[in-house]
Amino acid sequence: MGDRVYLFDTTLRDGAQMQGVDFTVADKIAIARELDLLGIDYIEGGWPGANPTDDRFFADPPELKHATLTAFTMTRRAGRSAANDPGLNALYNVDAPAVCIFGKSSGFQVDVALEIPREENLDMIRDSVAETVKRGREALFDCEHFFDGYKFDPDYAMAAAKTAYEAGARWVVLCDTNGGSLPHEVEHIVGEVTKHIPGDRLGIHTHNDTEHAVANSLAAVRAGVRHVQGTLNGVGERCGNANIISVIPSLMLKMGFETGITDEGLKRLTHLSRWFDDRLNRASDNGAPYVGYSAFTHKGGAHVSAVRKDPATYEHIEPETVGNRRLVVVSDQSGKSNILSRFAELDIDLDPGDSRVSRLVETVKQREFDGYAYDSAAASFEMLARRMLGQVPSYFRVERFTVVDERRFNARGEVVQESEATVLLQIGNETLHEVSFGNGPVNALDSAMRKALEPTYPVLKKMRLADYRVRILRAGDASAAMPRVLIESANGKGETWSTVGVSTNVIDASFDALLDSFTYKLFRNGVTAG
Amino acid sequence: MGDRVYLFDTTLRDGAQMQGVDFTVADKIAIARELDLLGIDYIEGGWPGANPTDDRFFADPPELKHATLTAFTMTRRAGRSAANDPGLNALYNVDAPAVCIFGKSSGFQVDVALEIPREENLDMIRDSVAETVKRGREALFDCEHFFDGYKFDPDYAMAAAKTAYEAGARWVVLCDTNGGSLPHEVEHIVGEVTKHIPGDRLGIHTHNDTEHAVANSLAAVRAGVRHVQGTLNGVGERCGNANIISVIPSLMLKMGFETGITDEGLKRLTHLSRWFDDRLNRASDNGAPYVGYSAFTHKGGAHVSAVRKDPATYEHIEPETVGNRRLVVVSDQSGKSNILSRFAELDIDLDPGDSRVSRLVETVKQREFDGYAYDSAAASFEMLARRMLGQVPSYFRVERFTVVDERRFNARGEVVQESEATVLLQIGNETLHEVSFGNGPVNALDSAMRKALEPTYPVLKKMRLADYRVRILRAGDASAAMPRVLIESANGKGETWSTVGVSTNVIDASFDALLDSFTYKLFRNGVTAG
Repeated sequence: MGDRVYLFDTTLRDGAQMQGVDFTVADKIAIARELDLLGIDYIEGGWPGANPTDDRFFADPPELKHATLTAFTMTRRAGRSAANDPGLNALYNVDAPAVCIFGKSSGFQVDVALEIPREENLDMIRDSVAETVKRGREALFDCEHFFDGYKFDPDYAMAAAKTAYEAGARWVVLCDTNGGSLPHEVEHIVGEVTKHIPGDRLGIHTHNDTEHAVANSLAAVRAGVRHVQGTLNGVGERCGNANIISVIPSLMLKMGFETGITDEGLKRLTHLSRWFDDRLNRASDNGAPYVGYSAFTHKGGAHVSAVRKDPATYEHIEPETVGNRRLVVVSDQSGKSNILSRFAELDIDLDPGDSRVSRLVETVKQREFDGYAYDSAAASFEMLARRMLGQVPSYFRVERFTVVDERRFNARGEVVQESEATVLLQIGNETLHEVSFGNGPVNALDSAMRKALEPTYPVLKKMRLADYRVRILRAGDASAAMPRVLIESANGKGETWSTVGVSTNVIDASFDALLDSFTYKLFRNGVTAG
Repeated sequence: MGDRVYLFDTTLRDGAQMQGVDFTVADKIAIARELDLLGIDYIEGGWPGANPTDDRFFADPPELKHATLTAFTMTRRAGRSAANDPGLNALYNVDAPAVCIFGKSSGFQVDVALEIPREENLDMIRDSVAETVKRGREALFDCEHFFDGYKFDPDYAMAAAKTAYEAGARWVVLCDTNGGSLPHEVEHIVGEVTKHIPGDRLGIHTHNDTEHAVANSLAAVRAGVRHVQGTLNGVGERCGNANIISVIPSLMLKMGFETGITDEGLKRLTHLSRWFDDRLNRASDNGAPYVGYSAFTHKGGAHVSAVRKDPATYEHIEPETVGNRRLVVVSDQSGKSNILSRFAELDIDLDPGDSRVSRLVETVKQREFDGYAYDSAAASFEMLARRMLGQVPSYFRVERFTVVDERRFNARGEVVQESEATVLLQIGNETLHEVSFGNGPVNALDSAMRKALEPTYPVLKKMRLADYRVRILRAGDASAAMPRVLIESANGKGETWSTVGVSTNVIDASFDALLDSFTYKLFRNGVTAG
């Protein structure tokens, strides 16, 4: 058995089963291209005949450089011939070199769900795989419910897998459909299967219902399979599928397997994971293994000083291997050394003896005591630091803002609600006074600010508010309550930045976070003051 | 070796290391109480002496019924005696029956990070554990970097663990500090350790950097350890710790171990996981294993019909075992019975055939889809139900409100900010039009409402706003962003109630949550309409 593992991505098929995921054809094409660039071996594009999106995708599929485009379907129905089965024929009419057919491999499922004789189910598997091979396609067979089926009746589960293998399936994929198996069970059962089918003809397909989808995939590889199915960021129905973004680096960097992915490809993982979330219009998981924003973050002073001596003290791999980076965060536990590391990352070289360093450390500590969560608002930290060092141009000066929120009943008794904001600000010597309605007070303020700023700073048109969170600090006494506002902004290219505002007034705190976000965008783009 | 596994929760200590997590003392107390109710054996409350929050928590710790409160610290420093070490003494001065001490167990770490002779590190472990036992505390020892240390120099790692064991540590906890180990490595290494230290004196502490924290914990249990450390929902630095919410049901339901958690306790898991996210003011992961909203969701027609025949066809456990529920997207029969059981809890008896029930079920489903988190806002749920059943008196009718927020610079160049709210409402035939300043817009509205209501309903003087949280639903597109406001109110006698509002306008959403809170207070006190 070789040490090459073949990767099969099912983001576009099984991943699309997730609640809230709704790919367009353009999404599918863009995602297939990214997976191909990464070096995935098989890309399952969908189920032709099942819905209009999948039909349109397969009608004009993207050209792939490395990956084999795969179409999904089920075995022929009971009582039909494979050659005349409409489901199978829908596949043979599309331009996909590989076909993945699923069928039952559990006696329990055949008895209870299909309600047909068990022998007939084996015939359906045999005919469907054989017909697919006859039509010149590479055939894969997904043994649905294989592990539960094996526990229920090992002989029947084995018979189903062997039937597909003997009918010519290139890969016989063992599925933990309900996601309830544990790694030691998977390793044991796969070990039994390899006595009948060689590992380089076996695959694994897992679900995350017990938080073991990745562990089960790797356990199966250890037991011999050489084909792993998964999805980007583990999307999928219920608790999701095996997260291929986590599977890949463990296989390659820790277990020493080869895949179709080069070392350069591996460096695309972090980008791909975040780009995919952006495409789904959802926040990335900061704690995602390998690729999360926080995955190589160091907070405590002792950790930071050990990492300075040797990163291997607190890092299991070099973050750059998967395209991620080390992050030293500022928090109220941090001393001077944390803040200096943080400066170095911002390319601010400062002599530790510089008097401004102590002043900045004190300011950060005071503000964190007041509730500014710089740990979660790196852009505000950078703006604070650079302002104190005199590096931020004076893009604009706000002199006054107002927001009016109103709710009333109109003549027809319907609720009417309105938010209107005004801003008075200066850019250079020019005074601007603008007003705007908005969808709530923060949106109104954002909108009025943009009316004033965008003519001078058109680059701001490209940023948008991606997330907005409020938490009350020192809750308990309404009059002392301090809302802390965290704003996440995005530029549409997958880049995001976070800013923070704290005030007794939630609108005021929101406004400060908004100003930091505008200023950060202008500074990052190298804009000069208007 | 018994089949009882001891659970150790470190949410309040290691979990607090996560970026963005910032517990108040009140948070810590509330979380400890919930963990105790669940049946966790050890609750690590924090590191006395490390920060003011942990000091205040240990100065007046919550009374626990089941769990052993545990304080965390490091071994004595090099060159000091344990009896005189300030860090250790800070622990002996607090009221925690158990003490968890961490120290290096990796030769590499001792050489590179500590830079002291290896023998001295063993002395530090021995002295610190022995002194703790001498002071009458239950001693636990966290072998930091144990697995990496074992790979680097197995003899030294074993020597460190044995030193702690022989010095009297009740539990010697093997830590995968950098989170880079895979389950087969953990199982092998733990197996070696059990040749020297019995499994019922060994624990496991893992991190999720390769998405194996849960799998590694269970692999260690299979190899013999009987103590598992983890955190709620897997919070923790970098990629998080072992998710104790996933560990528990796999241990109990799939591996047959006993813990301190009863079958009834197990049913609290789903509630606890979601409650904790709400406390952190973050969205729960719909795909969370066992407890996620989508964990037992059935979408496809074939799945649904198979599940109707026998839920075991597509479910790995019964959702009710962990307090979760089945969700059938096509025809939500379970929704109705769930809502009926929530009514029963409010002492509202309704005939399931009552036409109002279907209407209410539809309304609740629509509102939950829109983002009303009735799970976290029981008072709003009760008010909605009772209003639809005509049980809530018409205490007042709001016709209009306005809020004006302003920030400007005064003549001395100082920032001035003001919030002013007006309300126009009717109580019976009386029209009231009131205005008030406030500390922010919600406070101003609260204050204007009270000016109008308190003369008629003086009981409202006794309630106050205890917490206020905002989260954006459907983030990504600012114009479609939906703030959800959760308000917690208190009456000063330890009674609290939670209400929710959802609107495109955060002020509007806050106002609705506020109205529900006033109404709930009046209803609960049996007040009649004025």
